[in-house]
Amino acid sequence: MGAVDNTAIQRLLHPRSIAILGASDNPIKLSGRPIELMKRFGYTGRLLPINARRSEVQGLPAFRSLDDIDGDIDLAMVMLPADKVVDGVRDCAKRGIPAAIVGASGFAEVGGRGEALQQQLQDVIAETGIRVLGPNCLGMFSLRDRALPTFTSAMDNGGELREGPVSFVSQSGAFGTFIFSAAQAAGLGISHFLNTGNEADLSVAEVLGGLVETDETKVLMAYLEGVHHGRELLQVARRAHELDKPILAVKVGRSEAGARAAQSHTASLAGEDAVFDGATRQHGIVRLDGMEQLLDAGLVFADGRRARGRRLSTLSLSGGAGVLMADQASSNGLQVQPWDEAWQRRMAEVIPPFGSPRNPVDLTATLISDPGMLRRALEITVEHPGTDMIAVLLGNSDNASGPLIDAIEQAYRSTDRPLVVVWTGGSGRPRRRLQDLGIPCFTDPGRAAAALGKLADFSLRPPLPAAERPDDIDDQVVRGILRDARQQGRVQLNEYESSRLIAAYGVPCSGAFPADDPDSAVAAARDLGGPVAVKLLSDHIGHKSDIGGVRLGLTGDATIRTAAAELLDIAREAGDPAARLLVQRMAGGDTELIVGIKRDPAFGPVVVVGFGGVLVEVLADSQVGVAPLDAAASKRLLTSLRGSRLFGEVRGKPARDLDAAADVVARLSWLAHDLADDIAELDVNPLLLDQVGKGVVAVDCLAVLTKPEK
Amino acid sequence: MGAVDNTAIQRLLHPRSIAILGASDNPIKLSGRPIELMKRFGYTGRLLPINARRSEVQGLPAFRSLDDIDGDIDLAMVMLPADKVVDGVRDCAKRGIPAAIVGASGFAEVGGRGEALQQQLQDVIAETGIRVLGPNCLGMFSLRDRALPTFTSAMDNGGELREGPVSFVSQSGAFGTFIFSAAQAAGLGISHFLNTGNEADLSVAEVLGGLVETDETKVLMAYLEGVHHGRELLQVARRAHELDKPILAVKVGRSEAGARAAQSHTASLAGEDAVFDGATRQHGIVRLDGMEQLLDAGLVFADGRRARGRRLSTLSLSGGAGVLMADQASSNGLQVQPWDEAWQRRMAEVIPPFGSPRNPVDLTATLISDPGMLRRALEITVEHPGTDMIAVLLGNSDNASGPLIDAIEQAYRSTDRPLVVVWTGGSGRPRRRLQDLGIPCFTDPGRAAAALGKLADFSLRPPLPAAERPDDIDDQVVRGILRDARQQGRVQLNEYESSRLIAAYGVPCSGAFPADDPDSAVAAARDLGGPVAVKLLSDHIGHKSDIGGVRLGLTGDATIRTAAAELLDIAREAGDPAARLLVQRMAGGDTELIVGIKRDPAFGPVVVVGFGGVLVEVLADSQVGVAPLDAAASKRLLTSLRGSRLFGEVRGKPARDLDAAADVVARLSWLAHDLADDIAELDVNPLLLDQVGKGVVAVDCLAVLTKPEK
Repeated sequence: MGAVDNTAIQRLLHPRSIAILGASDNPIKLSGRPIELMKRFGYTGRLLPINARRSEVQGLPAFRSLDDIDGDIDLAMVMLPADKVVDGVRDCAKRGIPAAIVGASGFAEVGGRGEALQQQLQDVIAETGIRVLGPNCLGMFSLRDRALPTFTSAMDNGGELREGPVSFVSQSGAFGTFIFSAAQAAGLGISHFLNTGNEADLSVAEVLGGLVETDETKVLMAYLEGVHHGRELLQVARRAHELDKPILAVKVGRSEAGARAAQSHTASLAGEDAVFDGATRQHGIVRLDGMEQLLDAGLVFADGRRARGRRLSTLSLSGGAGVLMADQASSNGLQVQPWDEAWQRRMAEVIPPFGSPRNPVDLTATLISDPGMLRRALEITVEHPGTDMIAVLLGNSDNASGPLIDAIEQAYRSTDRPLVVVWTGGSGRPRRRLQDLGIPCFTDPGRAAAALGKLADFSLRPPLPAAERPDDIDDQVVRGILRDARQQGRVQLNEYESSRLIAAYGVPCSGAFPADDPDSAVAAARDLGGPVAVKLLSDHIGHKSDIGGVRLGLTGDATIRTAAAELLDIAREAGDPAARLLVQRMAGGDTELIVGIKRDPAFGPVVVVGFGGVLVEVLADSQVGVAPLDAAASKRLLTSLRGSRLFGEVRGKPARDLDAAADVVARLSWLAHDLADDIAELDVNPLLLDQVGKGVVAVDCLAVLTKPEK
Repeated sequence: MGAVDNTAIQRLLHPRSIAILGASDNPIKLSGRPIELMKRFGYTGRLLPINARRSEVQGLPAFRSLDDIDGDIDLAMVMLPADKVVDGVRDCAKRGIPAAIVGASGFAEVGGRGEALQQQLQDVIAETGIRVLGPNCLGMFSLRDRALPTFTSAMDNGGELREGPVSFVSQSGAFGTFIFSAAQAAGLGISHFLNTGNEADLSVAEVLGGLVETDETKVLMAYLEGVHHGRELLQVARRAHELDKPILAVKVGRSEAGARAAQSHTASLAGEDAVFDGATRQHGIVRLDGMEQLLDAGLVFADGRRARGRRLSTLSLSGGAGVLMADQASSNGLQVQPWDEAWQRRMAEVIPPFGSPRNPVDLTATLISDPGMLRRALEITVEHPGTDMIAVLLGNSDNASGPLIDAIEQAYRSTDRPLVVVWTGGSGRPRRRLQDLGIPCFTDPGRAAAALGKLADFSLRPPLPAAERPDDIDDQVVRGILRDARQQGRVQLNEYESSRLIAAYGVPCSGAFPADDPDSAVAAARDLGGPVAVKLLSDHIGHKSDIGGVRLGLTGDATIRTAAAELLDIAREAGDPAARLLVQRMAGGDTELIVGIKRDPAFGPVVVVGFGGVLVEVLADSQVGVAPLDAAASKRLLTSLRGSRLFGEVRGKPARDLDAAADVVARLSWLAHDLADDIAELDVNPLLLDQVGKGVVAVDCLAVLTKPEK
């Protein structure tokens, strides 16, 4: 994203003038709606209808063509039928308009002729440099300027627009506007809404990249059906991280059924969901499961407050609500701990004796007749040093709501800590009043807890992985191995080569020597010392162990010689008379990891970690990181595995050398990153973990190279 | 619950006459509110204010005392201060009133003097047989009769009461009424609401037991903070199961923080949450995590429809919403599968070519201008044999909502399959219209999916465990073992006794003989054949293996003799010269389970199962069943373990003998049930599972008896 591009996007986001190509005088027609909407809501810039046959459109002076307009035009809304779009966009570019929105459908999403049209559109874009949102999109809302180049019907239910710090980008048009409407109803103030549609040019990532730079956007929300420019998205995430602006994202296609449906809907294969999940977590993007979770998180993120920790204090009218909140806070990673005695005593002074000053603090229903109690209790809570976040739980009590809301507002203004209200039941008027005051308010304790949990996760997020390439990589060895294989036209590296490759990246491998015959196998075993494994080393035989091509734990010259001879016989029978042997030291350690490298279509080279052995089946759990990772991020990846207790002391067995394992994962991630064009796949299986301080060792490794181009 | 009691509860639930003791003329005072509410909403029975100083209360003729009233009185609402309650309730009982509600607080919940008062109240109840709801409760709402013996402020926001098939019992007063209000706002019609407060007499279980027998109650909802009469609750669950009436329950105290808060709030220690969880699942109770989940489930259960399977078909205005629904349905145990080709062709005939007929069916936004398409698409869906449930996903589109709602209503009336609507955004008017038509309607796909998932779980619930006691239990052996231990004043059974005890219940144990000296150990090993374990058998030494008191895999007379002698030496050194030896056949099988028996304060004897070995630490997973269980329920318990894949084929190892393990669990559950008064705790660890057909074997077992009374 160069500077020029971003300028174009900024003019798209804040257009001081909008030309509407194909503007209709009929405010009900799709091509009349943008003008109707901007007139209704009072667009603050110049609205320029283009209509070859009318001098006035919906009461505004209209222009025959773009050339009849004086001055800069920031944005064109192209409301032409699909087959006129390409010419229209070319005209816009000629006129020097930096950005256009194309609403029409009938492009790639319908296949055939539409695909050709989209290609033509892309050619014009490439040729002229104009930036395009769409086609097949509902357009944009910029609420500050009331710039509404859109034909949405989302604003047809009456009511005002609620402006605020949240910008929202959606790949889905209709569902995006449903979410927009639901957000407005939930009291969430919006800065911008954009629908990217077919993304012939501007992707969600680029739009987010533009939005993150705008002052009025403090929170970014995205609804994604598939991500094709994963690395761009992560770049934006880095920038958002720097600016401390959260990105809240829903991405569908998490389940098999959802992925199948998404593919059928967007007609394109996106990267794997697990990769998206790992990549976004690694980059501080807050992923939400659904629409309501997205909006709930939006509500607590919107006021810009951050949590210093996970300790939640709750004050409630009902002891029961407090207990439920304690449960739901816990299941969202928050802590609801009793206050220490001294603070309990302070709280006890202001609440009734049959209440509870412990936390959850039970103020009891006396609150309704004595709202001053809530004020006093909140003053103490705001002072309490062990409180990172505050939740006030109320319900019904419309008649008493005025002074209660005053007390809450006073507390809210007096602290920079996150404070939310849960107001269950009642008429809804108190909730709306709190929303108008900018205080996040929910109806359900669980939803408030989930949103606060996400806020804590974001507030306490780890730094993004640093780009610190290990300085001890033996690039010459690496180049040699790859060159040899390429020269021989192979894409499969054998186990010896694969191990040397990772060894060159500093990954400890169990010592091994290749051997051509039984005698050299015996010699190799003597050099290694201790028990050895003898394995077939073949460029042709795939699953060695299936044909008995692996012998473990051998000692003594005679045993090794016999095994070596037998293995070579097996290879001959299997059709590879050129097979050699690999003699390998038997490795110590008994916790097994599998570390793999692969390429994701959206995010490029990634590292996958999981437990090996029987736990693979039981846990069915792996974690993905985008390469490269530093050691800290690698360690987080490992400890986020479900079986991560295995790294600690288990049944008297000392803790495993997690740091050494993390170092290996980081090194392999650099290998994945450096050799992205050469390595298609690489698996270390198993990586054996010894106890703390004794390191790890890669026992088996196999790498597959990318197919040569052409 | 005898017949008489239930009559009293039925009169409480459907009072044709209600006396209000301590009725105030002031409608704003707590003691004036019940009359104000019943006048306002039009109670259909006789309302009888009792006030010693007034002949009229709030315009109604008042009575000096109960004795001045002619005819039956079904219910008394005792609105007297705490210290007058006991006399008041006694008066009610004397007057022949079968049930009373006590609103006053100041009883057990405040401790001290209050506890004494509650004891006095309980004495009167025991003496007279009157049934009491409360004290410290908000009372009851019976919406059909507009019987509102309650002083709640939940109805002060205006609006009508929405009557319906759902009855709701809450231990929490204030939060219960918040939930009631939220339910009404969500369109959920309520039959009864009762708050049980301190439960001096009527527990949630008993109230549910009364409600389940009422014709107008089709769905039971409960909000629980602690369960003290677990077995009674399960009895009600059995009855509800027979009547096909679901019980939807939220129980707080799931997390440690929540349990601590609940304990502080209700001042009583309830049973463990895991036991509640297992017991209720086993008995078909639908447990929900929070308030909104409870109400959402209520909405889909309220129309009484059941799912024949888990296959969901969705029709949506927006492809994006369909994809999200597919994801969220999957994560709630539902299946969203593409229809077969023939049905896709039928669907394709009625939808636009750029839509999708696969399922999720994407009708596209054309729907808004052609609502007939929704009607036609729904007709096909209703006919489609692979559709168990239907979800229609819409949004905004208020202006087009009339014909869309008509199409939905027509489809809803034409099928008995569950059908829900998700209408996101918009003004909310279409949602309210659908609710008024009795069609469940949500704003968020995820919430609809979660509720449908619960409906499927309930519809397809397994039968409740049958009470089939195995007929091969050797009761004589059992009695003998217990008698010996009791006579010797022991509460600890040694390993040999424990194994004989479970063997008498038909649990296969690895063969074992006790031995007093090395020679008899050798003889025992010969009798057993194969390798043996030799262990100390001591009534005094606890952790045998910690002091080297266990030797495994021994063969050969000499080895066994030496080991035996060494073990007896160890025992002498450890201070137990009377210790003996246990010689045990080494068992086959390598998947380890732990099966335990313990007593829960609320639910009595329970069985706990989990994986043994290293997986204990990794999975930290166990499942609890209430004794007795049949083999089918035992098997469900085992397969609900997180590591249950281990029962199947893993890495080429054949599947384990799950049926044999389930049989053992069932037998141990009968032991727990039969010997509930004698066995405090019993652990089989490990139970080794061999491959299918080869059975299981209990290797180690230790039982602890209950402490003798006094």
